[in-house]
Amino acid sequence: MEQLPAQMTVIGISTPGGPEVLIPETRAVPKPGPGEILIKVAAAGVNRPDVAQRSGSYPPPPGASDLPGLEVAGEVVALGDGATKHKLGDKVMSLVAGGGYAQYCIAPDAQAMTVPDGFTMAEAGATAETLMTVWHNVFERGGLQPGETLLIHGGSSGIGTMAIQLAKAFGSKVIVTVGGQDKADACLKLGADHAINYKTEDFVARVKEITGHGVELIVDMVGGEYVDKNLDCAAIDGRIVQIAVLNGPKATINAAKIMVKRLHYTGSTLRPRSPADKAAMVKAIEANVLPLLNAGKVKPLMDSEFPLEDAAGAHRRMESSAHIGKIVLVV
Amino acid sequence: MEQLPAQMTVIGISTPGGPEVLIPETRAVPKPGPGEILIKVAAAGVNRPDVAQRSGSYPPPPGASDLPGLEVAGEVVALGDGATKHKLGDKVMSLVAGGGYAQYCIAPDAQAMTVPDGFTMAEAGATAETLMTVWHNVFERGGLQPGETLLIHGGSSGIGTMAIQLAKAFGSKVIVTVGGQDKADACLKLGADHAINYKTEDFVARVKEITGHGVELIVDMVGGEYVDKNLDCAAIDGRIVQIAVLNGPKATINAAKIMVKRLHYTGSTLRPRSPADKAAMVKAIEANVLPLLNAGKVKPLMDSEFPLEDAAGAHRRMESSAHIGKIVLVV
Repeated sequence: MEQLPAQMTVIGISTPGGPEVLIPETRAVPKPGPGEILIKVAAAGVNRPDVAQRSGSYPPPPGASDLPGLEVAGEVVALGDGATKHKLGDKVMSLVAGGGYAQYCIAPDAQAMTVPDGFTMAEAGATAETLMTVWHNVFERGGLQPGETLLIHGGSSGIGTMAIQLAKAFGSKVIVTVGGQDKADACLKLGADHAINYKTEDFVARVKEITGHGVELIVDMVGGEYVDKNLDCAAIDGRIVQIAVLNGPKATINAAKIMVKRLHYTGSTLRPRSPADKAAMVKAIEANVLPLLNAGKVKPLMDSEFPLEDAAGAHRRMESSAHIGKIVLVV
Repeated sequence: MEQLPAQMTVIGISTPGGPEVLIPETRAVPKPGPGEILIKVAAAGVNRPDVAQRSGSYPPPPGASDLPGLEVAGEVVALGDGATKHKLGDKVMSLVAGGGYAQYCIAPDAQAMTVPDGFTMAEAGATAETLMTVWHNVFERGGLQPGETLLIHGGSSGIGTMAIQLAKAFGSKVIVTVGGQDKADACLKLGADHAINYKTEDFVARVKEITGHGVELIVDMVGGEYVDKNLDCAAIDGRIVQIAVLNGPKATINAAKIMVKRLHYTGSTLRPRSPADKAAMVKAIEANVLPLLNAGKVKPLMDSEFPLEDAAGAHRRMESSAHIGKIVLVV
């Protein structure tokens, strides 16, 4: 095991603003506390909440690093007291509370998972946050069952492309909405049964045409006017899970649709969940999903890699919405 | 057993409109089909959907009677093929698909329940629809647990006054919103822990003051601007059940609250549920709730009784919103 340096390069948010505020800084390498591990970061996934944090609309929770970055992959280089799940030298991927845009990053030992067989470190770095978000919202919260139909808005996003694969692997049908033909093609290639271009088609009408009775589950990251349209797309007893509101949180709905169709409208954000909740999700994923990843049946669709120092470029790519799949920083 | 007459008096809806369109008519006494019973009606509860049906905004479902009236109590006077749950002469109360405003009414045998000990027929006539609505939405759909706090809007309504009693009987805390001091007093007397006058107090602020963290369950019959306020009143992981939208279905919400608090927003209407669903609710009520009614611990709060012929007067009373508890037609 190499000697740990005292200092490391990180990407800080110099002030709330555009991608240009993401600037390399030098910080002390953190020390893992009880139940924590220190990961020498090989790759860090870029996610929408990082963009929101950078622009000042999503401050890190109390006690979390002020640095962006919610998922990393790398090598375990130090163990805190009582961290027994992993050992020095293990290759792991993990959800982190922040600070992923760095050469070294602290993770709770219980949240780290062994890098799946056949995964590059870049793929592993793009997996943890996405997988936990999809697992929790589609399967735990959304309760997707084999044979049911899942509608995913933002089908070509990192979350969308993972959700397509997992829903298909577990025997469901998948409809996605996307903003272009290249994105539709990518989703269909991953196994989606139908891809609707929301720019050229009325997705409510198309969903009704495809399903007749509507979809059993909707996972929505768009919000805004999609919220009421989701009520139209859902089948009787259907569920809707809100995981982001990229078009804004304000929505005008017809609440009678909730009653008449007996819908369930819920949602979640991952970051403020308790360590116990996150550890429970990881356990469920290790039991139910990692076998699929190890077998090569599911892996993140990779859009692009940027060097850590060009985190600004990675954010520009995400904000362009031209990406298909995951954007990753490599160290 | 007396001979059944060929004809009976009913209250028909002569044309969609105000209370004055409720006019006595003469119709043939219906014959129970397979699995049905004929009830000689002693009392029929008046409910908000009857008012909506009368005014033309809530047409009866296909196959249902065109006459208003969703709950009755009376004596079983004829049995259809295979109706074995009850026998001639039994005193029963039942949800009906319509046609309760009449001297005789058909009910599915499986939906009828024995009149509880100590209940007058007027009380029994005010029980079935209310009890099923409360049981399903508060306990089955809303999942209210002992120790949790339930917020009921419309606390002094028939549904509100039943919900207060049942929630307290099962060990929960209850907060209600009401529109006046007399209504607040009535709810507190029934066991509600807090009654908030929405005309003079900000109920969101009061709920936060009372609970600190918000309420675990909200049952709302108001809709409109209450929908977003409910998101504010709910605790983390809270549930909201929409059972009517008396202030209108249109609601502007902040969907981010659903995500951040991980809320569950659902709702239901009873009338279109399948016979199997309704029979299952009745079974659960017979097992869990009827013992409380037979013990005299829970009974409908009675507002007023009107003769069947004055259904118009009963509707006027309901639309005045001056009533506290149930309004019943007696035959």
